Amino acid sequence: MALISPSRRLRRTPFTPGVEAAGVKGYTVYNHMLLPTVFRSVEEDYRHLKTAVQVWDVSCERQVSIRGRDARRMMELLSPRDLSKMQDDQCYYIPVVDRAGGMLNDPVAVKRADDHYWISIADGDFLQYALGVADGMGLDVEITEPDVCPLAIQGPKADDLMTRVFGDQVREIRFFRYKELTFEGHPFVVARSGYSKQGGFEIYVDRADLAMPLWDALFAAGEDLNVWAGCPNLIERIEGGLLSFGNDMTRENSPFEAGLGKFVNASGDYLAKAGLAARANPDRMIRPIEIEGDLPPCDRAWPLFAGDTQVGNVTSAARSPDFNTNVAIGMVEAAHWAPGTTLRVETLDGAHVAHVRDKFWI
Amino acid sequence: MALISPSRRLRRTPFTPGVEAAGVKGYTVYNHMLLPTVFRSVEEDYRHLKTAVQVWDVSCERQVSIRGRDARRMMELLSPRDLSKMQDDQCYYIPVVDRAGGMLNDPVAVKRADDHYWISIADGDFLQYALGVADGMGLDVEITEPDVCPLAIQGPKADDLMTRVFGDQVREIRFFRYKELTFEGHPFVVARSGYSKQGGFEIYVDRADLAMPLWDALFAAGEDLNVWAGCPNLIERIEGGLLSFGNDMTRENSPFEAGLGKFVNASGDYLAKAGLAARANPDRMIRPIEIEGDLPPCDRAWPLFAGDTQVGNVTSAARSPDFNTNVAIGMVEAAHWAPGTTLRVETLDGAHVAHVRDKFWI
Repeated sequence: MALISPSRRLRRTPFTPGVEAAGVKGYTVYNHMLLPTVFRSVEEDYRHLKTAVQVWDVSCERQVSIRGRDARRMMELLSPRDLSKMQDDQCYYIPVVDRAGGMLNDPVAVKRADDHYWISIADGDFLQYALGVADGMGLDVEITEPDVCPLAIQGPKADDLMTRVFGDQVREIRFFRYKELTFEGHPFVVARSGYSKQGGFEIYVDRADLAMPLWDALFAAGEDLNVWAGCPNLIERIEGGLLSFGNDMTRENSPFEAGLGKFVNASGDYLAKAGLAARANPDRMIRPIEIEGDLPPCDRAWPLFAGDTQVGNVTSAARSPDFNTNVAIGMVEAAHWAPGTTLRVETLDGAHVAHVRDKFWI
Repeated sequence: MALISPSRRLRRTPFTPGVEAAGVKGYTVYNHMLLPTVFRSVEEDYRHLKTAVQVWDVSCERQVSIRGRDARRMMELLSPRDLSKMQDDQCYYIPVVDRAGGMLNDPVAVKRADDHYWISIADGDFLQYALGVADGMGLDVEITEPDVCPLAIQGPKADDLMTRVFGDQVREIRFFRYKELTFEGHPFVVARSGYSKQGGFEIYVDRADLAMPLWDALFAAGEDLNVWAGCPNLIERIEGGLLSFGNDMTRENSPFEAGLGKFVNASGDYLAKAGLAARANPDRMIRPIEIEGDLPPCDRAWPLFAGDTQVGNVTSAARSPDFNTNVAIGMVEAAHWAPGTTLRVETLDGAHVAHVRDKFWI
């Protein structure tokens, strides 16, 4: 790994002092912001995430706030997913696409009010697309990036830890729903969500002055739960089939190719409707892939071959201690995507045998 | 500096093998791509840039390609700058802004044909804004990020080096103009431009297979010119007053605040016209600032004070060997922006005396 040069453009977060004190060893850059990638080691962090509870600085999940008279219309223009039944306390995964059906992001929309939504984005300035639509169409909305910094509490003991800080109401929060719960007199949006399969919450921290007090309160309350500072874990997220926009899919791909076709169900006249209709039968798709042997870090797309023909790419890969194999995510052409198909993946260190699987490791 | 974790999302470039072989010591992430920040040391790189010639991998200056029947109209909708006199071989610096006059990027537009423009962007997915406008208005344009990777040749000996590889025509290229010049039988756009004040060129490399051959040819031809691999240099760019979008200005700022008001001169009906008209008399502006003492790295905005009142921020700062002081860029409120004003800047290491200057160090 190379060093990363500091600058204001690679934004720190209100939790960075806590992250640094906890001994962060690596970062990535996500939405122009620092996102920790490892504390002890990726393997130690992984083991701990699956057995205890971690506090993650995911401030880089920036919010695109859409507010105003046309907010609902704007959301309907942007969303391939039917929003008509979205409740006031609900979070919706809504892959967003351009007119031609190419993915622009895979955010989570959080309904704050009838005229106010947050779009909690993956890496990429989706704010600019929303702004372009609003400016081009003259919509009556205000589009901003508010200083809201999500803090994720993830792991099997997440309910226990959160209850100690926010009270028993935490346990009543349903999956992809939220409640406003109070800390130091301020109501925070607390959702049952997060970028792991271990369960947990995301606290949308909209008061920077309360960020480190909240961080400290969580660590104080969780001492006997063995709470650690953590971060999205490469191994765990591949095992669980959690996609990473920019890694596993890009604007080259439709949501159908990314296996997200079930979120394309809006009946209204959204911007991408015709483009998506034309791509509803993809000829390549995301697949779980098992790879044999010792792998280098996956820092670029690795081509997948059937004989001499390239039939896809592997885009994320890691050694899984629990499954004692290499877990990977790739995009595979239709003729080769059947579970059980054996392919060849070319890495920097040479060729490896790869097997298309039916399910992720969950 | 912390370590940066590899992933496909932090894209390598066709020149990364050359950059690594040259001993890159640090990166930043820019448009989801690796941008080198230091090779020997920032000071050694600086000294060499001012006296010799360097080859920079600035592939991260991605192109937003706007092509089609409505391309010219699209450019006019996006650009506050009058494009009516733009020649076929011309590059224009066009700060782009939203409907409210907030800066979205400060790219260089390159006219490729009447119906085809490249917008060579600073850090930020301006492609998404252009796409939002096109999708929202139903314009007949194709908007893509072609695989065009600029390679910059910068320094006082840039003309000499470039002539050896591309021939004498190089010397005839005027500032912010380009010619198509041939290497290995392929015509490359070669512009006299670049992110330094030392003179030089940017080669828009649109053939990835010719990237390393071109890199190698430049190093072979420039051996006696002492050509080095280099990168945009923090010290030199601050001395020269070269702004960095995301560091020195953001969407919070108008082009007037960033000192770019002279580029707001289009007469047509572009999207940001009313928003910019309302902000034509800014109450804060970019200023060159000299700072006394020993400074830590500037990794966040440092507040500027007059007495107890915050009157601005410093956003970039570095020790200048040539001027034997700390050179800096900041945003200062009107009552305090007069050259010669003395202020106080608060850094992590404490307070420093700061002086507003009339000019950058050029």
